Amino acid sequence: MMDSLNVDVALIESYLDRLYVIGALPGGGAWRPVYSLAWNEARQAIRGWLEEAGLAVREDAVGNLFGRLEGVEPEPVILVGSHVDTVYAGGRLDGALGVVGAIAAVRAIRARHPRPKRSIEVFVSCEEEDSRFVCDFWGSRALLGQIDPAEAERYRDADGITLAQAMRQFGLDPRRIPEARRSDVGAFLELHIEQGPVLDREGIALGVVEAISGLNRTAVRVAGRADHAGTTPLAMRGDALVATAAMVLAMRGLAEELGEPARATVGRLDVHPNQPNIVPGVVDFVVDSRHPDRALQQRLLAEVQRRCENIGKSHGVVVETSVLVDQPPTPMSPEIVALIERVIERRGWSYRRLVSGAGHDSQILGRQIPTAMIFVPSRNGRSHSPAEYTPLEQIIPGVQALADAVEELGCT
Amino acid sequence: MMDSLNVDVALIESYLDRLYVIGALPGGGAWRPVYSLAWNEARQAIRGWLEEAGLAVREDAVGNLFGRLEGVEPEPVILVGSHVDTVYAGGRLDGALGVVGAIAAVRAIRARHPRPKRSIEVFVSCEEEDSRFVCDFWGSRALLGQIDPAEAERYRDADGITLAQAMRQFGLDPRRIPEARRSDVGAFLELHIEQGPVLDREGIALGVVEAISGLNRTAVRVAGRADHAGTTPLAMRGDALVATAAMVLAMRGLAEELGEPARATVGRLDVHPNQPNIVPGVVDFVVDSRHPDRALQQRLLAEVQRRCENIGKSHGVVVETSVLVDQPPTPMSPEIVALIERVIERRGWSYRRLVSGAGHDSQILGRQIPTAMIFVPSRNGRSHSPAEYTPLEQIIPGVQALADAVEELGCT
Repeated sequence: MMDSLNVDVALIESYLDRLYVIGALPGGGAWRPVYSLAWNEARQAIRGWLEEAGLAVREDAVGNLFGRLEGVEPEPVILVGSHVDTVYAGGRLDGALGVVGAIAAVRAIRARHPRPKRSIEVFVSCEEEDSRFVCDFWGSRALLGQIDPAEAERYRDADGITLAQAMRQFGLDPRRIPEARRSDVGAFLELHIEQGPVLDREGIALGVVEAISGLNRTAVRVAGRADHAGTTPLAMRGDALVATAAMVLAMRGLAEELGEPARATVGRLDVHPNQPNIVPGVVDFVVDSRHPDRALQQRLLAEVQRRCENIGKSHGVVVETSVLVDQPPTPMSPEIVALIERVIERRGWSYRRLVSGAGHDSQILGRQIPTAMIFVPSRNGRSHSPAEYTPLEQIIPGVQALADAVEELGCT
Repeated sequence: MMDSLNVDVALIESYLDRLYVIGALPGGGAWRPVYSLAWNEARQAIRGWLEEAGLAVREDAVGNLFGRLEGVEPEPVILVGSHVDTVYAGGRLDGALGVVGAIAAVRAIRARHPRPKRSIEVFVSCEEEDSRFVCDFWGSRALLGQIDPAEAERYRDADGITLAQAMRQFGLDPRRIPEARRSDVGAFLELHIEQGPVLDREGIALGVVEAISGLNRTAVRVAGRADHAGTTPLAMRGDALVATAAMVLAMRGLAEELGEPARATVGRLDVHPNQPNIVPGVVDFVVDSRHPDRALQQRLLAEVQRRCENIGKSHGVVVETSVLVDQPPTPMSPEIVALIERVIERRGWSYRRLVSGAGHDSQILGRQIPTAMIFVPSRNGRSHSPAEYTPLEQIIPGVQALADAVEELGCT
């Protein structure tokens, strides 16, 4: 067995610090929505780092960046990376860690294997967060050739600018989107913060993702009757909020019945007319339900609808449900998962398998390319917030494991 | 016994039609907030009708209008009326019916009693709805001398205009508010739509109000922890909305336990951050609770707070409650209630006693002056909406009963 590969800790810290300044908001957190000035500035910084690392840099038709270490075998290529865009007021690590970790990993590999067996590329996805356009994993879908160029005219940001206009501002031509498609990729590895509390609470160093949950969003409209809160006897009411309250509790109960890692959450709920002295006439809410097993995901979805409708009937209100989102789960590659576990065991670090309840570029690429993810802990599970935090000493094992796994895949 | 007094049906209909045009909104309904152009236009129309009815018209320091039929005894005066202002997009009858009905009643009385035993005044209250300034029964409180003139500088409308500025635009001097106080009033009668569904559903012609419910509004803040809806296991959540759902059901259950006419309603509820993929961190809601018995009102209020706090504890979230409003109930005058019942029985109409769950000028005046209210049915209980409707043939018995009762009080 070779000596351990050592990633450059100081470089990782300085790159993360540098990225977090780009798009920094006065109130804390950063915002680098796709095709914005901050996004472009971050990509220019990353481009410099890729060049410094001795990699051949290339940008594709949507703005994904690649830094290539040419192997003896030009393909299949091993991709390693994550996304450069952020949510509004996002934290220091979401996406950024996977990009910086990939650069550090490939730098370390190149130092020992100037020409590895397989070609290895850092992949800097242009868009993952839907924080400007709800365009659904734009970078990864482009790479798989799954974007219809007409989509670029369809999506608009909050200012009414189309995604196509935003692309053109950075010299990208929406008609060329199909050129971003690649069929030479043999594996994808992504390092990410967990964005949940499990590793942190359990005191475990690393998570190895075995699947990314399937996701449904179901819009529920509960229509009762708005009445005066003082004059309308209880028995004569059609209180949409009382019925909704029973549904919210039922959604929680449903997820508990299915058990971990099922999720059912009502995060968005709007009451109409929302006046203290008026019995709510209409309530709109969204049920976010997730499961990594497709059959159970579908059963969960069906129960969400069935239980809301039944509660509506018993409360004398009208319930309409519509499925807004139906994303199937993505299993990770068992072979790469096993390989990651081996390299972690070799280092002697603790780890556990996890299901990712959050979406990632890996869930798109993983449908066509053998893919795996490594998680580092998120302090208190915080993410999508300036409170997002993982101490450097908990970050480094993740980058190290990523480097070890890519080295095994690419150089042996 | 005298012949029946007959009110002028055509006049009532034309006055109601005329008022509903003043402040009419393009989307339906009228808006005549206090100290607005529409409000003033309505008062000018009413002033004309009072003069046509042969009454001596006077305006007080806040803009309440009075039309007086002088009696043999100058005081105590019998007041009869309601308010001229409306909610936004209000209906045709709320307030307007009580004003128009009072004019029609006093006209009919004057025709038979040019100089009645007691002085009778139509009272057109300048403000009742809080729809521009949350100034809490401005017209009635002024009449009782309960307004501190400094209040006029304190209240602001949505455009930042103070109530004092708004008064000055119509030539009213806030420093003179105390002059509106009257101590010569011996009785107040108010005709109003029920604004609830009881008379309409039960097919009863008239309601005789025995009390106006005491009202509490309790603000409840439920603080859990915002977390990612995908990554956070159920057992690790502090879901403020799940806890709130249990509270909403508990509020309904509490009112049901106390029985009619107790009310407990959650009409306003706001979720933070209100995103489909984020476990709600904070929910704010308001409990509107009402009871006509002060002891039971206070017990209800204490239970609202106690149950929310207990549910919070069992859900591991932090609950803060604060009482925003505490208005005691106002019992109506048993003597005037009995008199109204007698005149209705004499006409042979059906009636029932009711508790008013809504607030009215009568609840302010009734604390110091013997007061009573007559309700006519509201179709489907609709009010504060363009859908507010009572057919003329259901309106007339209310005006007739009002006229009969005022005649009995003032002329015998």
